Amino acid sequence: MLTTELQHKIDSKTKPLGALGTLEALALKIGNVQQTISPVLKHPTIVVFAGDHGVAKEGVSAYPPSVTHQMVLNFLNEGAAINVFCKQHNIALKIVDAGVNFDFPEHPLLISAKVGHGTQSFLKNKAMSSEQLQDCLNHGRRIVDKLSASGCNTIGFGEMGIANTSASALIMSTICQLPLEECVGRGTGVDDEQLQQKIRILKEAQKNHPNLNNAYEVLQSFGGFEIAQICGAMLAAYEQQMLILVDGFIATNAFLVAKTINPKIQDNAVFCHLSDEHGHKNLLNYLEAEPLLKLGMRLGEGTGCAVAYPLLESAVTFLNEMASFESAGVSNKDSL
Amino acid sequence: MLTTELQHKIDSKTKPLGALGTLEALALKIGNVQQTISPVLKHPTIVVFAGDHGVAKEGVSAYPPSVTHQMVLNFLNEGAAINVFCKQHNIALKIVDAGVNFDFPEHPLLISAKVGHGTQSFLKNKAMSSEQLQDCLNHGRRIVDKLSASGCNTIGFGEMGIANTSASALIMSTICQLPLEECVGRGTGVDDEQLQQKIRILKEAQKNHPNLNNAYEVLQSFGGFEIAQICGAMLAAYEQQMLILVDGFIATNAFLVAKTINPKIQDNAVFCHLSDEHGHKNLLNYLEAEPLLKLGMRLGEGTGCAVAYPLLESAVTFLNEMASFESAGVSNKDSL
Repeated sequence: MLTTELQHKIDSKTKPLGALGTLEALALKIGNVQQTISPVLKHPTIVVFAGDHGVAKEGVSAYPPSVTHQMVLNFLNEGAAINVFCKQHNIALKIVDAGVNFDFPEHPLLISAKVGHGTQSFLKNKAMSSEQLQDCLNHGRRIVDKLSASGCNTIGFGEMGIANTSASALIMSTICQLPLEECVGRGTGVDDEQLQQKIRILKEAQKNHPNLNNAYEVLQSFGGFEIAQICGAMLAAYEQQMLILVDGFIATNAFLVAKTINPKIQDNAVFCHLSDEHGHKNLLNYLEAEPLLKLGMRLGEGTGCAVAYPLLESAVTFLNEMASFESAGVSNKDSL
Repeated sequence: MLTTELQHKIDSKTKPLGALGTLEALALKIGNVQQTISPVLKHPTIVVFAGDHGVAKEGVSAYPPSVTHQMVLNFLNEGAAINVFCKQHNIALKIVDAGVNFDFPEHPLLISAKVGHGTQSFLKNKAMSSEQLQDCLNHGRRIVDKLSASGCNTIGFGEMGIANTSASALIMSTICQLPLEECVGRGTGVDDEQLQQKIRILKEAQKNHPNLNNAYEVLQSFGGFEIAQICGAMLAAYEQQMLILVDGFIATNAFLVAKTINPKIQDNAVFCHLSDEHGHKNLLNYLEAEPLLKLGMRLGEGTGCAVAYPLLESAVTFLNEMASFESAGVSNKDSL
């Protein structure tokens, strides 16, 4: 059994049993995903999917909708947090226009997978058509399949989209069957009054989308394009035996949908951090997922994946490079 | 005011206010330590101090005392966890023989600062003489002064010494005036019965060292040589305006003694992780210190510092390299 072999290799290292804590659990997980006792993280990549949300017009966010495309330009100019953290850790970065309300010029970092110029407001209508949903899932899959073919086996997903904590809260509330109050947070930073307004608006939207029968219907109803593409991308990453780095609240909701479609996906997932966004803790509890980091971050963009990435490297590195009790001539506990 | 300038620089970055959480607090701290709004981590170094403990003979540890010198040899052969993590993050590593019961050949990684071949058992006697204590403090200081002179401004401290969780528990219990049960843990992994024995032995030792009047007397009574040298080293690091990375239970006890001597030292300290060793949580609470990582590690060697180091880099990197709202042309919250 590979798990037994991996555990034996971990336990033979010159340290007390279990003394590397979570790094040991990570080493075990990565070995199992890659089906080897000597795993390697190849061409680690973070893909940031961006999309606009019709509901942003309804007053659910602290920032204007134009920030979505402005931040995409910031990504392309390498000025955002995700740029500097990816550069720090030698993680390749790709930006996907999943459906931003702006026409970008071509750029080496940019993948065009535009499904529209933003979703419809889900206040009364479905955020997207079933064709758009299918297009999103296909685009996400295609992007990951291509990265896998070029040698990447470790992939994180980030997002940018003003109002996408609202879409995510509705997805979470519907799939987890939790009250909206446990799913809605301050997003980019709404104040108390705006938060009450956000909850009111989302409750109204929820009433207008009763009887959703499966994960696809939930995704189609609330969007956004970036969330649906991440969902398709995660499903493909599992099928390609890749390690999947799950970021904060929005990315975890994309994961939630993907897991509802294919429950086995969690075997390949590493939950990188606990976001400060209110609903994330409840969502991770629902998934029985333990995040690596708790740094009070709430930025999205895949920043949690990037910042947690060195811990994955540490897990692989100790497993491959540390001496064993035998090779180092160190007395083990049994030798007392 | 530098703090105001730093906060303004942090808040001008293209992210919602506070969205990088702990990384923002870290950036503020590092800027304040280095007295600049553009801090740089120079020649990061981890120094691992090793020493033997007379009390190891009394049956307080799961491993034989010879493991101290065997692990030092493992460090020199670059096979231990701290070696692979330092290599991963380009952190320089130095090993100090503070008082191991073994005579090492010269080695480029090894600094000899030997004060003896291990402390006396503190069961009935003081672990070291007052001359040995003074020597330890001086050695620690000298090592740090030399590193500072060669350009290092970021320093972490690790330790190796079978039975040093016992010495640490007594230091903590005495200085914090907490019952020993709140300070004693399983160390390298004693079982339930051995843990009760460890507590019994340490209670007896505590009774035999009443009326300790200051931090120096506590250090002299319980040792070890490695803990005393780390204490001197931390005091010097503060005076040299270095950033001090505090590791797990034993290193935090060295810090506790240093802080008792110079309370301002905490301004320069980053608490890298919460060890799984039972007393560490109580000790961090006593110090009102929030650790960066909670990964269930309990290995010492400075491994918590090494694994947390990329977070310090991330803090400095976002502060220096991220675009501002103005430079990136991104709308801020106020522009709604």
